[in-house]
Amino acid sequence: MTVLTDRFSANHTAERDAIDAGLRNAAARLPAPAARIAAYHFGWTDEAGEPAHASSGKALRPLLTLLAAKTVSGDWRSAVPAAVAVELVHNFSLIHDDIIDRDCLRRHRPTAWKVYGVNDAILVGDALHALAFEVIAEAGGDRAPAATGLLAQTVRALIEGQLADTRFEERDHVALDECVAMSEAKTASLMGCATALGALFGGGTPQQVDALRDFGCRLGLAFQHVDDLLGIWGDPDVTGKAVYSDLRNRKKSLPVTAALGSGRREAAELASLYGAAGQLSDAELHRAAELVEACGGREASQSAAASLTEAAAGVLMAQRLRGEAVEELTSLAASTVGRVW
Amino acid sequence: MTVLTDRFSANHTAERDAIDAGLRNAAARLPAPAARIAAYHFGWTDEAGEPAHASSGKALRPLLTLLAAKTVSGDWRSAVPAAVAVELVHNFSLIHDDIIDRDCLRRHRPTAWKVYGVNDAILVGDALHALAFEVIAEAGGDRAPAATGLLAQTVRALIEGQLADTRFEERDHVALDECVAMSEAKTASLMGCATALGALFGGGTPQQVDALRDFGCRLGLAFQHVDDLLGIWGDPDVTGKAVYSDLRNRKKSLPVTAALGSGRREAAELASLYGAAGQLSDAELHRAAELVEACGGREASQSAAASLTEAAAGVLMAQRLRGEAVEELTSLAASTVGRVW
Repeated sequence: MTVLTDRFSANHTAERDAIDAGLRNAAARLPAPAARIAAYHFGWTDEAGEPAHASSGKALRPLLTLLAAKTVSGDWRSAVPAAVAVELVHNFSLIHDDIIDRDCLRRHRPTAWKVYGVNDAILVGDALHALAFEVIAEAGGDRAPAATGLLAQTVRALIEGQLADTRFEERDHVALDECVAMSEAKTASLMGCATALGALFGGGTPQQVDALRDFGCRLGLAFQHVDDLLGIWGDPDVTGKAVYSDLRNRKKSLPVTAALGSGRREAAELASLYGAAGQLSDAELHRAAELVEACGGREASQSAAASLTEAAAGVLMAQRLRGEAVEELTSLAASTVGRVW
Repeated sequence: MTVLTDRFSANHTAERDAIDAGLRNAAARLPAPAARIAAYHFGWTDEAGEPAHASSGKALRPLLTLLAAKTVSGDWRSAVPAAVAVELVHNFSLIHDDIIDRDCLRRHRPTAWKVYGVNDAILVGDALHALAFEVIAEAGGDRAPAATGLLAQTVRALIEGQLADTRFEERDHVALDECVAMSEAKTASLMGCATALGALFGGGTPQQVDALRDFGCRLGLAFQHVDDLLGIWGDPDVTGKAVYSDLRNRKKSLPVTAALGSGRREAAELASLYGAAGQLSDAELHRAAELVEACGGREASQSAAASLTEAAAGVLMAQRLRGEAVEELTSLAASTVGRVW
């Protein structure tokens, strides 16, 4: 995902700096070979171990954690360990998913397993996974059991989503509700965990924690719709992926699944392109994109993303939260999801 | 490791049943495809998913947890979740290590990655890893933060040990103290965690927790010496490994490293066998085993295992613990480590 505007990246500098410092502190505990690979993965060093200024990603999830904490107490600093734990879990899952999906590029650079081999990449992912729990346990105080439980359940959901995703590739037909459930597990769950942990570490009530989790889950599903739209119509210079990349990989993404299940005349042609042997030609890829649109898949994901983002904001309205911080959070949500159109 | 006597297996039936039930309950939370693979790995089902009665392993670590809890309070039931978490971490690391080491057999059956593929095996390992933290967080109460922190640090040590082990294979020379440090990280740390968590969940004082951790770490290193002896001189029918299996793989195990670093005349011949290209013949394997013995490697590991086990028991003597339970724990230790000679 590279949905981020420059304007957005320039905001929240203090929060971003705190997340970066927290991540670096945590990663410094890793055994030397793992620390070196983590530093490369996070963009802090190049392949030779020299300092680098590559992108560490958008830090969207940890930022959601900090802004969620602000909505309940105005104080985001106490939630930094939770934000760091969320980002550690996100990156552990990226490193393992890149191995599983045989993805060679991440943030415009070779993936960890491409540079350091599969074995070391498995172990570094494991190390970041454990580190997330260590950070949460140390800083959580009496919230640690709830936070640990939530984080562990979220990892379970991520794995459920990744297992479903790999199985979809082997199937001819995937129903839209299965695809939504997979996206909820693979993407929405961690964003819901991010905002819930922020509320928890910010000292929120159980109702506030639930509401912020609900907010994050809805936003996360909106985010996945947008990501899937970008996987077809995104600008390769921005996304870092080839044009029509998801169609090229015959990915059963949300707009494609909606299109295939639309019952429209063009769906059969799309299904036969997806079922064809060999690589799709540029003309076929262009045609597949037209067919997804003709079947209403593009519009379905656009409208789902918009209504989910609106519903997410609505969830917060029912809670006693700090107005200014809510605005900051919903505007982060809108800028993340809203700018593809 | 298959160091276990039948006599030992028949003991502690109530504790073993509680561990088994706890593991099954925990594994039931996994998403269906992961639960199926975990059930196979634990020996509860065969490859087709039918009920089986294969070995789940010795459950040595969780048993250490329960017996450690008994030494402080006489009550082991409150420590069952800690025992389950330890066994989950152990099995997550086995599943990932089998992928990394390309090991095809575990407990006389094909390994998880051989049956279900590397991708699913990575994810199942991740799921068991997260589940361990979930179980600890739920049951730990106010001990949860300390328990989570200890478990996470232990995973870090396991990874450090595995990283060192893979690097040893690529090196000509490994010093004995490096090999000991690797064994402490890879084996001793989790056994120390097992006994420490038992003491913690049993309601032990910080001093008792530290002492039981120390006990477990020393026992764990003794255990690794024995495992390495079995890797050379173990009976293939018992170990499930080929005769001279560690020599065949040119493993720089504790007795081999001690032999190579002994400065004796025979060490040079052993080093040249280890450095030779191609597979070693049966005669060469036999000769290598003779050379390890001639260089004092066999005796060094035998005597280290014996003195570590004795020192482990000594650590407990200095504490106020329940005498009968201490005897049970040290006799488990002795039966685990003591029967190779």
